[in-house]
Amino acid sequence: MIIDCHGHYTTAPKALEDWRNRQIAGIEDPASMPKVGELKISDDELRESIAKNQLRLMTERGSDLTIFSPRASFMAHHIGDFQVSSTWAAICNELCYRVSQLFPDHFIPAAMLPQSPGVDPATCIPELVKCVQQYGNVGINLNPDPSGGHWTSPPLTDRHWYPIYEKMVEYDIPAMVHVSTSCNACFHTTGAHYLNADTTAFMQCLTGDLFKDFPTLRLIIPHGGGAVPYHWGRFRGLAQELKKPLLKDHLLNNIFFDTCVYHQPGIDLLTKVIPVDNILFASEMIGAVRGIDPETGHHYDDTRRYIEASSIVVGDDRHKIYEANARRVYPRLDAALKARGK
Amino acid sequence: MIIDCHGHYTTAPKALEDWRNRQIAGIEDPASMPKVGELKISDDELRESIAKNQLRLMTERGSDLTIFSPRASFMAHHIGDFQVSSTWAAICNELCYRVSQLFPDHFIPAAMLPQSPGVDPATCIPELVKCVQQYGNVGINLNPDPSGGHWTSPPLTDRHWYPIYEKMVEYDIPAMVHVSTSCNACFHTTGAHYLNADTTAFMQCLTGDLFKDFPTLRLIIPHGGGAVPYHWGRFRGLAQELKKPLLKDHLLNNIFFDTCVYHQPGIDLLTKVIPVDNILFASEMIGAVRGIDPETGHHYDDTRRYIEASSIVVGDDRHKIYEANARRVYPRLDAALKARGK
Repeated sequence: MIIDCHGHYTTAPKALEDWRNRQIAGIEDPASMPKVGELKISDDELRESIAKNQLRLMTERGSDLTIFSPRASFMAHHIGDFQVSSTWAAICNELCYRVSQLFPDHFIPAAMLPQSPGVDPATCIPELVKCVQQYGNVGINLNPDPSGGHWTSPPLTDRHWYPIYEKMVEYDIPAMVHVSTSCNACFHTTGAHYLNADTTAFMQCLTGDLFKDFPTLRLIIPHGGGAVPYHWGRFRGLAQELKKPLLKDHLLNNIFFDTCVYHQPGIDLLTKVIPVDNILFASEMIGAVRGIDPETGHHYDDTRRYIEASSIVVGDDRHKIYEANARRVYPRLDAALKARGK
Repeated sequence: MIIDCHGHYTTAPKALEDWRNRQIAGIEDPASMPKVGELKISDDELRESIAKNQLRLMTERGSDLTIFSPRASFMAHHIGDFQVSSTWAAICNELCYRVSQLFPDHFIPAAMLPQSPGVDPATCIPELVKCVQQYGNVGINLNPDPSGGHWTSPPLTDRHWYPIYEKMVEYDIPAMVHVSTSCNACFHTTGAHYLNADTTAFMQCLTGDLFKDFPTLRLIIPHGGGAVPYHWGRFRGLAQELKKPLLKDHLLNNIFFDTCVYHQPGIDLLTKVIPVDNILFASEMIGAVRGIDPETGHHYDDTRRYIEASSIVVGDDRHKIYEANARRVYPRLDAALKARGK
């Protein structure tokens, strides 16, 4: 089985975006704030948006199951207040849940949180509980910068975030550390902000001792870990300067990288440098990079091809990256699969 | 000849730091603001600080000449106003100039600029002119984020920066895009902010059309280009989505990467992915990562070893990375060497 741990609902019916635009307009003009019930998307519309897009490509590329969360760039936690984020997160999470019910063999949900800049992350717990208990979510996306590129929250090692971690540990679910749209003109969302956040989150964990407080906490750093594997020597050296343990002991029981790296040399570096137990297959398809690479004739984000072509990832290692690691990092995914005899 | 295009004066005599601390105290208490003349560092002290450190390691490692600029993390453009930055930059640049006079075969200076958040970059021109005309500087360091991790300046493609670029083009000098200390708790200076800035600067150039306005402008992205080479497929794909030309045409006549990547797989990726004409040898020694890698028994930042061990960089390519590219990207360095018969 091939599990893609990083998929977003980037192809939701246009009614969702229209409703969101009305919600944003309603922040300034409360009289025009839409009601949740005004958003109507039928099962047929959901089915079509998936069957023609993600599921079609999954079938073409040979992946079986996607851990599916709301569109990352649309989380936009910086817009409005907690109430705005809360309503928006509930809508988006419900849609991913419905997709998972319509295509139970192919999609299992992970939740976005109703984060809001300056608001206590504990306020996200009710949505998280609902998503796990009622919707069967197997993980969450945690935004280390709900300000959208101004980085006004404390580092992930700060106690500020502990209410989320406590609930994650209780439910035994991991978080993918994933920012949303940048509203800082310096940072292109998918070309800078995403990668910067990945590097930043890893370095925050490196300087801190978060996993002493939460030995079972698990974080997935997406987009191949940002700059981290490429600069693995730098990070090993910085840990040494900071008198931290070796990275494999300090961080690699708790931090995992996905394979959203869109060319062969990048995947080769990732798989050479990072232990195989810490790499989870992913494509972030359909996402930021949708085109066909003229150098290969294949989609940039068809990451399975890079794994298949790898001379580094062979034998059982391939099974780990495709399936076994995801089952270990997402125990509720493993339980759901086993309940279906898989 | 081996030219290291990325060295900072990280080992200046302690009197420099003491003076700086008094200057910082003087921002709040003007009566205690030190005069420039109160900083006294003898030639012998300069000589010792270099001979025992950078020059010793250059000799051990076999590099010949370092392009030498003030300590990047000490630029701290976010501290004080333009006057504070201006005085500080003048002091630091003069010290690097004196080092270059004391060791003319081994050091040639590059200037820091007296940037200050919210201040027009045109105010940096007098210091830049002095450094080029009187001190023989062959390049500058340009900080895309003088706020120190809050990213309050416009992107590098904005006309805001054009006065600097116009002078760079007039003098035919390149800029290394290099941030300074982060005062944002989210970003570790050398483990996150530096790498993020590299990625950010590259993506700013990718989304813009800066090199249409300045076809001869040259920027060096340090630290191996941040996350860029590792995600080269992503950047190629994003350029395609944005209807930009191929990266080699859009950016690689103007953007160069250094080799400050502190492990063999990273250097291998860099040299495999980025055309050899765009790679300049560098170590940033003595810098952020000073230790010995237990996996190799050698210093992490002894980057020459990775080039020497490379099976990718062979023959004339090695000469390009070590010397020829630096002479081309820094024409004033080439002229200075030729004037000495080199």
